[in-house]
Parts: sequence; structure tokens; C-alpha cells
Amino acid sequence: MNGGPSLVPSNINSYIEALIPRRTSIIEEMEQYAFANHVPIMDLISAESILQLLRIIEPKRILEIGAAIGYSSIRMAEALPSTQIVTIERNQERYDKALEYFTKSQKTEQIEILFGDALELVPVAKQKGPYDVIFIDAAKGQYKRFFENYESALSDEGVIITDNVLFKGLVVEETIENRRRRQLVDKINSYNEWLMSNKNYHTTIIPVGDGVAISKKRGV
Amino acid sequence: MNGGPSLVPSNINSYIEALIPRRTSIIEEMEQYAFANHVPIMDLISAESILQLLRIIEPKRILEIGAAIGYSSIRMAEALPSTQIVTIERNQERYDKALEYFTKSQKTEQIEILFGDALELVPVAKQKGPYDVIFIDAAKGQYKRFFENYESALSDEGVIITDNVLFKGLVVEETIENRRRRQLVDKINSYNEWLMSNKNYHTTIIPVGDGVAISKKRGV
Repeated sequence: MNGGPSLVPSNINSYIEALIPRRTSIIEEMEQYAFANHVPIMDLISAESILQLLRIIEPKRILEIGAAIGYSSIRMAEALPSTQIVTIERNQERYDKALEYFTKSQKTEQIEILFGDALELVPVAKQKGPYDVIFIDAAKGQYKRFFENYESALSDEGVIITDNVLFKGLVVEETIENRRRRQLVDKINSYNEWLMSNKNYHTTIIPVGDGVAISKKRGV
Repeated sequence: MNGGPSLVPSNINSYIEALIPRRTSIIEEMEQYAFANHVPIMDLISAESILQLLRIIEPKRILEIGAAIGYSSIRMAEALPSTQIVTIERNQERYDKALEYFTKSQKTEQIEILFGDALELVPVAKQKGPYDVIFIDAAKGQYKRFFENYESALSDEGVIITDNVLFKGLVVEETIENRRRRQLVDKINSYNEWLMSNKNYHTTIIPVGDGVAISKKRGV
């Protein structure tokens, strides 16, 4: 599988991956496309972990920020046939590819994709809510703004999932020479600190894939 | 924290642990006791991951197989004040210690502990069910028997959590000279294969702590 490096030793990864059932042919085709074209998609083990969480939550409606080529949307749609998914993508090429895959997998009734920047589409996307799950998987430097702009679209006791919060383990690197990368790592670190100390949510960071934060809204 | 080695690099573990809020004083006392006395308790990151899952499930009733000194029971009771917990321990010393901690933490109303072998106590423990979550954290060689003996006590769409399914990464070791250890690893491997291919459950293995399998009963 692609999806970037994992925090877990590769032989353990392979052990778990070998136990995971084959995906549908469209999904395996997308995995190959993503690998060949360097499109970041969720690694297999994080995907399975998140899908399992979603099977337990049984959300009516999911908002995904960052569709890429639609891999996670289609996987969620397959795992949760009664769930409606709204997803946002601002890259034209990826948006087109996602649309193509939604059509090919016959998921256009279940998945709606919006083209544009998630921060500009807040009113449009909110109107289609509320969402039981919001899945943040877009520009890492904007995580806090995504969270703050969309949390009012979350249903009571809903869950916000943030992907890539450990950024290939770079969050613990002290010497990063590239200035932009250093700034990005600092932003992720301050997002993680802010999120973990946010009193309105219980948050846990799970070290699967590139690090997944699960934030459950506390009851009132 | 103690709880044995982790599959995740230690600097990443430390990064996440530093973000986790302090536990109650009784819990931190138990962590120190477990460390000093070599009692295996859940590592901090698996504990947080499992507690987060439980906050989302909101189970009415949990059955735990393998109380040890009561660490996970008390953590679950604290995280889920409306949940009833039944736990089983067959080691007299650990049972006594668990009882002592349940009393000290004023959780005796919320947690009931049964003394004995979980396979012998099946009728007694079942009578106190059904359980929305069954947490298997006892003798690794008996996982399949625990699962098979107790799954009828699981409520519809309930979840069975099995801890330590990656056994410190030993599941991928090909050369284990100690014969008993080899047999135990073989048993865990065949449990994992059996569990992942069991059609009545959706199972995901999450590589946190010592490996946690989450099995959700499929709807009928």
C-alpha cells in the first residue's frame, strides 16, 4: 500500500495488512492510481481503523474536508450504505478524478462533492449539515481554522477526526532545516496541543498511519 | 508508563503521552504499583484509545475478562459514570488488590468483580449480561475459547475488544526457540486469522500498545 510511511514497524504493518480482506476492484484500482501518481490517500491500516470507528458511530451524515481522488469517501460509502457523505476538494484535477470514481462506483447518490476551498465553502457545506462526523484531511497548516469554522456544523456528541496529526513523525523532530516545513510542523504541534486541551471535546491521538486524532464532543 | 513495550517509536509515544491529561491520583498510584510489581496493565496510549472508543459506544454494561489489579476497570468506570462493569480475575493476590482499589476509589457500586476462572464462571457472568462490550484481556492461549464461550452474552451490534493480539510484535517472529512461547504465538496467530475471517463480526486490528482487535457484531 501507499499513503506514505507508517509509524509502525513494516513487518507488523505487513502482518496486519495480510489479514485485511481484499477491497472491491474499484478501490484497488484507486490504490494503484494513487501509488502511481503520488496522490496521498489513507494507508490501509488507518483506513480500516477509521472505518471501524464509523461502523460503530453509524453516522447519518459525514463531512469530509479534502476529498483528493475520493478514495476515503468511497470506502466510507461502501462501509456505511445508509450514510450520506459531503466532501470538498479544491484541486481541479483531483476533483475531476474523484467525480469520475464516484460515477464509476455508482456512488453519486450517496456522495456529494463540492469544488472549492473548504474555508470559502463554509456556508454552503454547513447548510447541508449537521454532520455526525467531520473528517479533516486537507491542508495541514489550516487544521485549526477548519475545526473552528466547522465545529458548529457538528451534531450533539458528534466526532471530529483529524488525519496526519503526527506528520510522518516530524512532530518530534527538533532540527528541521527547511523553514516552511518547520513552520508547518510548529502549526501541527500547536494544533495538537490546542485540541488536546480543548474542554469541549475528549480527544485521543491514535498512532496509526500518519496519526489520527479522534475528538468527541462532550455532552452538555 | 509501564505496560510493556510498544510497537510505536518511543519518541512518538512520549509525544502523545505528554499531551494526555494527568490521571486521577488513585490511577497514578496504580500505575506506580503495577510498574513496581511487574503487573501488566494497559499502556497509556492503548488505554486512551480504548476509553475513547467506549465513550463513543456508551455501553450500558461491560464484561472484562482479566481484571488484574483493576486498573482498566477503574479507568472505564471513571470515563463512563453510567456504565456497569463486571470483571473476572482468577489470581487471588490480584483479585484482593483489585478489590482494595475498587473500595479506595469508591467504585464498588459500579464495578463487580468475580473471583475465579473465566471459563468456569461462564454461567454466572452470562446471567449478569447481556453486555454491550466484552473486553478480553486474560490468558492469551485461551482467547478463542473466551470469545466462543461469551459471544452469546454480547448484545446486538455489540463490540468485543481483544487486547495483546500482536504480543509485543512476536506474531511476526519466525524463529522463537522457546517451545511454549512458540506455541503461544501460534495460538495468537491462529486466533487473529480466525477472528479476521469470522463472518459474524467486522474486525480491525489496531497497532496501538500491544495490539488491540476491535470486533463489531454485524447486524442481522
